[in-house]
Amino acid sequence: MHQTLRVGVYGASGYAGLDLVEILARHPYVELVFAVSNTYAGQPVEHTALTYVKTDEASLADVDVVFLALPHGVSAEVARRAVDAGVAVIDLSADLRLDSAEAYQQWYGHVHPYPDMLDAPYGLPEIHRAQIAGQRVVAAPGCYPTTTLLGLYPLLKHGWLKPGRPIIVDAKSGVSGAGREPKPNTHFVEVFGNFSPYNPGRSHRHVGEIEQEIHKLDDSVGTLIFTPHLLPVDRGLMASIYVEMGDGHTSDQAQELYEETYSQEPLVKVLPPKAQATLRHVVRTNGAAISLTPVTPEYLHVTSVTDNLRKGASGQAVQCFNLMFGFPETTALL
Amino acid sequence: MHQTLRVGVYGASGYAGLDLVEILARHPYVELVFAVSNTYAGQPVEHTALTYVKTDEASLADVDVVFLALPHGVSAEVARRAVDAGVAVIDLSADLRLDSAEAYQQWYGHVHPYPDMLDAPYGLPEIHRAQIAGQRVVAAPGCYPTTTLLGLYPLLKHGWLKPGRPIIVDAKSGVSGAGREPKPNTHFVEVFGNFSPYNPGRSHRHVGEIEQEIHKLDDSVGTLIFTPHLLPVDRGLMASIYVEMGDGHTSDQAQELYEETYSQEPLVKVLPPKAQATLRHVVRTNGAAISLTPVTPEYLHVTSVTDNLRKGASGQAVQCFNLMFGFPETTALL
Amino acid sequence: MHQTLRVGVYGASGYAGLDLVEILARHPYVELVFAVSNTYAGQPVEHTALTYVKTDEASLADVDVVFLALPHGVSAEVARRAVDAGVAVIDLSADLRLDSAEAYQQWYGHVHPYPDMLDAPYGLPEIHRAQIAGQRVVAAPGCYPTTTLLGLYPLLKHGWLKPGRPIIVDAKSGVSGAGREPKPNTHFVEVFGNFSPYNPGRSHRHVGEIEQEIHKLDDSVGTLIFTPHLLPVDRGLMASIYVEMGDGHTSDQAQELYEETYSQEPLVKVLPPKAQATLRHVVRTNGAAISLTPVTPEYLHVTSVTDNLRKGASGQAVQCFNLMFGFPETTALL
Amino acid sequence: MHQTLRVGVYGASGYAGLDLVEILARHPYVELVFAVSNTYAGQPVEHTALTYVKTDEASLADVDVVFLALPHGVSAEVARRAVDAGVAVIDLSADLRLDSAEAYQQWYGHVHPYPDMLDAPYGLPEIHRAQIAGQRVVAAPGCYPTTTLLGLYPLLKHGWLKPGRPIIVDAKSGVSGAGREPKPNTHFVEVFGNFSPYNPGRSHRHVGEIEQEIHKLDDSVGTLIFTPHLLPVDRGLMASIYVEMGDGHTSDQAQELYEETYSQEPLVKVLPPKAQATLRHVVRTNGAAISLTPVTPEYLHVTSVTDNLRKGASGQAVQCFNLMFGFPETTALL
Repeated sequence: MHQTLRVGVYGASGYAGLDLVEILARHPYVELVFAVSNTYAGQPVEHTALTYVKTDEASLADVDVVFLALPHGVSAEVARRAVDAGVAVIDLSADLRLDSAEAYQQWYGHVHPYPDMLDAPYGLPEIHRAQIAGQRVVAAPGCYPTTTLLGLYPLLKHGWLKPGRPIIVDAKSGVSGAGREPKPNTHFVEVFGNFSPYNPGRSHRHVGEIEQEIHKLDDSVGTLIFTPHLLPVDRGLMASIYVEMGDGHTSDQAQELYEETYSQEPLVKVLPPKAQATLRHVVRTNGAAISLTPVTPEYLHVTSVTDNLRKGASGQAVQCFNLMFGFPETTALL
Repeated sequence: MHQTLRVGVYGASGYAGLDLVEILARHPYVELVFAVSNTYAGQPVEHTALTYVKTDEASLADVDVVFLALPHGVSAEVARRAVDAGVAVIDLSADLRLDSAEAYQQWYGHVHPYPDMLDAPYGLPEIHRAQIAGQRVVAAPGCYPTTTLLGLYPLLKHGWLKPGRPIIVDAKSGVSGAGREPKPNTHFVEVFGNFSPYNPGRSHRHVGEIEQEIHKLDDSVGTLIFTPHLLPVDRGLMASIYVEMGDGHTSDQAQELYEETYSQEPLVKVLPPKAQATLRHVVRTNGAAISLTPVTPEYLHVTSVTDNLRKGASGQAVQCFNLMFGFPETTALL
Repeated sequence: MHQTLRVGVYGASGYAGLDLVEILARHPYVELVFAVSNTYAGQPVEHTALTYVKTDEASLADVDVVFLALPHGVSAEVARRAVDAGVAVIDLSADLRLDSAEAYQQWYGHVHPYPDMLDAPYGLPEIHRAQIAGQRVVAAPGCYPTTTLLGLYPLLKHGWLKPGRPIIVDAKSGVSGAGREPKPNTHFVEVFGNFSPYNPGRSHRHVGEIEQEIHKLDDSVGTLIFTPHLLPVDRGLMASIYVEMGDGHTSDQAQELYEETYSQEPLVKVLPPKAQATLRHVVRTNGAAISLTPVTPEYLHVTSVTDNLRKGASGQAVQCFNLMFGFPETTALL
Repeated sequence: MHQTLRVGVYGASGYAGLDLVEILARHPYVELVFAVSNTYAGQPVEHTALTYVKTDEASLADVDVVFLALPHGVSAEVARRAVDAGVAVIDLSADLRLDSAEAYQQWYGHVHPYPDMLDAPYGLPEIHRAQIAGQRVVAAPGCYPTTTLLGLYPLLKHGWLKPGRPIIVDAKSGVSGAGREPKPNTHFVEVFGNFSPYNPGRSHRHVGEIEQEIHKLDDSVGTLIFTPHLLPVDRGLMASIYVEMGDGHTSDQAQELYEETYSQEPLVKVLPPKAQATLRHVVRTNGAAISLTPVTPEYLHVTSVTDNLRKGASGQAVQCFNLMFGFPETTALL
């Protein structure tokens, strides 16, 4: 039997925060102490008996752990205060994901306030499980990096890709990925019946993060070409990945490689040959699904899908939480 | 052959304004002189060679006519200035639609700045064609009143409804009716897969306007019960109307009454018996469609549909414009 | 502790059947023995280790209970065989819902094969809980009757409606209500961006069933005017109900009446005053939500919503099952 | 002034056929004589005074030209009869697009009935204008080939791509591309909120056709990797193209190349640098839009969009028709 931990959530009224609270509310080892939302302060928090509180109404002295579903820049400040107060942190923002202050400044355009916190492990359990277990601070990655990296991991881990060749990722995300704050590009009328690329080429902030993780696994691969698109659906994310096989490997061997690599993973499903991964496979679940298409012996097409708010955000954060504190990894996630 | 008029549009970047400019751009007797949008000033105006200008950059001295697709409250001010400058006005806002300053204050919560302008005719051509022709200022009604009144007009005009009995209108509107400014209730994620009533009962501001027009035609009918709903579509509006037939009239006689009443109307289509009006009949057209279902001899169900941005806004404004200046009524509308 | 029952599902690959299997798969007192689908025979059944079997491959000797998610006409035949084999039946079709063979023939156009089975209780627990408990055969109502009757029940039970006045129901259903078999009216392109009435007035088959149940509660009310519409969403159903209060009752008293009537109901939520029920309140849940709008003292507008595949089909069937066999009523439903 | 031609349409009730009739109905030099639909025979043809007729009710003696919006296999038979009757043919099917009977049999799985007809020019005016003018039989390409080839044409024409390197096309199509006949994969419930790849790798029938046209322009390029996806919208198609620049060329030079290549094309719009092509740019128009993103000097990302039913089908067929008979090329298309 496990002891219960006192948990606080910052950014609890955003789309990731809402799913996070829903998952934590049914977590047997979690006592949800507060849910911070400056916008919705005073209103009830669904799935709980709480009402949202403002940041200054939430006391770090009352909790053992905090989840930060906050914008980058804001998140690091709260993380710092939490750590100084002896509170464990699962950060869903980008603030702790990059390994160097230089990289952070390059992609986010401002100096990182606490470079020493950048040694937090990258919270993608299927790749970094050992580093996450027992940690007090973890940087949980978001939807694009998670979906892309899970789709590439077996190839990168075993060095099956052709050195120097590009990795092409044509990605599509549901609108909740753009956040809950109303903006012109998330207006129903603008999205309905439409489909749009944005931040194409290498301009999206997650390119730096994805490449960092790719190169940790295989630093011989070439340029990451990454194009996100806005899909007229509420949730779900697909990364369509096109890669070139290295010498001695053919695309038809990938199916077995992926099945082996993920055979023990409770939250990653490799579909059988010929089947194609779709949003329907993962929406409102905490898992990922991957399908493989050998195009020619040298070219492989990988389709990787997640729910951008679950395995791409809240579910993954809870998966990290479970690992950090020794709970069964899928507690509250299946 | 007709002379060309110089036209300006205020509120040209809103959803109604965008459709209005598109229609005016192909109007053979219109020279579009300016399109005002304080938000998009400097950006190109689609379907034209213009760029949006700010209010103070648009000179009333350059135009013969202005269309006002502005919020209520703002519109009356511009209408006043235009009239004082000798410029004709088609107002798409609610500012000139109500007949008394008292009614305006009751429904809009502030004193009407120019009560003398409230004598502008109500710009619903199928009902008030004679009063609109030749006028210099017209108050063009919006989507809910237009669709509801067209669905009721033949019954009201001929006094076929049972005195004192309620008129029940269950209405559904596409999201563009809520305007282009991003708000929480128009966020794609909030609308997608959802359907919601709002301002139910008699709380919607258009209740006063609709009842005013109903009572001009038949002051014996009972309470208007009006419930708008937000539909997960971009455009289109349906008014589902339930009424009770007066003595000497049965619901099965309504089909002929409607066909006769609208037989000469180019923009109102009465569907044959058994057929049902749907959004598909009218979206992206300037017309209305109506279908009739005799439920029992005493109860009639009327379905009236329009495109909320066309016959419910911009198309109707141009229809009024054509009448005001003696152009063929459907010029640029078919 | 309860004993486990062996359960079979017919029509398991339809939309209601899919949700039914998903619920039963997590029901602690259910062993799912077979899932019948002649269309998908041989394919795996999601959420289970089973594969779909054809009707003749499913042996009634292997089960204690069967759920029938079959078309009307077909269902009665299987129900008969099940009863003769001593197997309990929860029928989700219309075959056992009407009280007389005459009514069945009137609304379904063919002779009822087993009129003696029409004495099965009507499986709407919030109204007929006592009659369902302990039964061996129950006729579970579908989405339109359930949503409409829950929205009217408190008023009917207490005789608060004005005798002889019509009950107007403007209903809207998600497309899954039309079934999984592809038809022209369920083609994505036909539904997308559209909204359509169908079977208006009193032509929908459920009118007879709804009126039967209304009159059991209050035989003084007037005509049911019922118009279903097809909503461009996958699931969710709203019944917008307009009624007239009887002497001695005003619409503002309804809130308390509904709150009292449903205070002990785990699956029916009465929203607070001013709040409006939307599809979002109930989609993918097994509950119903109701909101009340007093329009004038004499007129009341009720909005009742359910997930058409859950409380409107599968969830309700399992709720009946729980009652029939003495399991906690919400087992597997919350 | 031009003479009017008598025109017949086969497959007039399919989605492409419906748009085709709508365009032809407003074509000043077209007299629409018959619209064939065996499914809808006897029903009125929207935008015209005609009713649909069955194949055997349509006489080739009554027309000068026929448009064939028919399934492959069926189309060749009608094309043959038309040619034998001295009637000109615009074929929207795949039957006349491939250059050899061998290729046809490889991709369509049956022997081509009339190999001699395969010399019909490929009806993509922006590439083959000269060959189309004055012809009596033209094979108009469909949505995937048109959108992909327009997106690649300037690079292929000028030999700017790196020899032997793959051309990666991640394509997304609205549901109308799957045809009007209801199928499980076009059921609203299956598509709503979902996004799915289909016929991935090189398994889609259009791969052969696209490669044939690519190699006519540049036979040095490598493998075509083509993945179509089903997008939850009614119409619109996007081809996201990823290519590698050949020696002596860099991706930032592509903008000027495309602008020059298409500078005289009335129906192809090259967006300015940084702008991104979206479905909204082309839906319900007869044009294409293209945007370019230089990813690195050697890698270029091209986004090409069309309305799959217009420039990807009906609009293009009329554009070919205009060229064949010497009408202004954009007649009835702008």
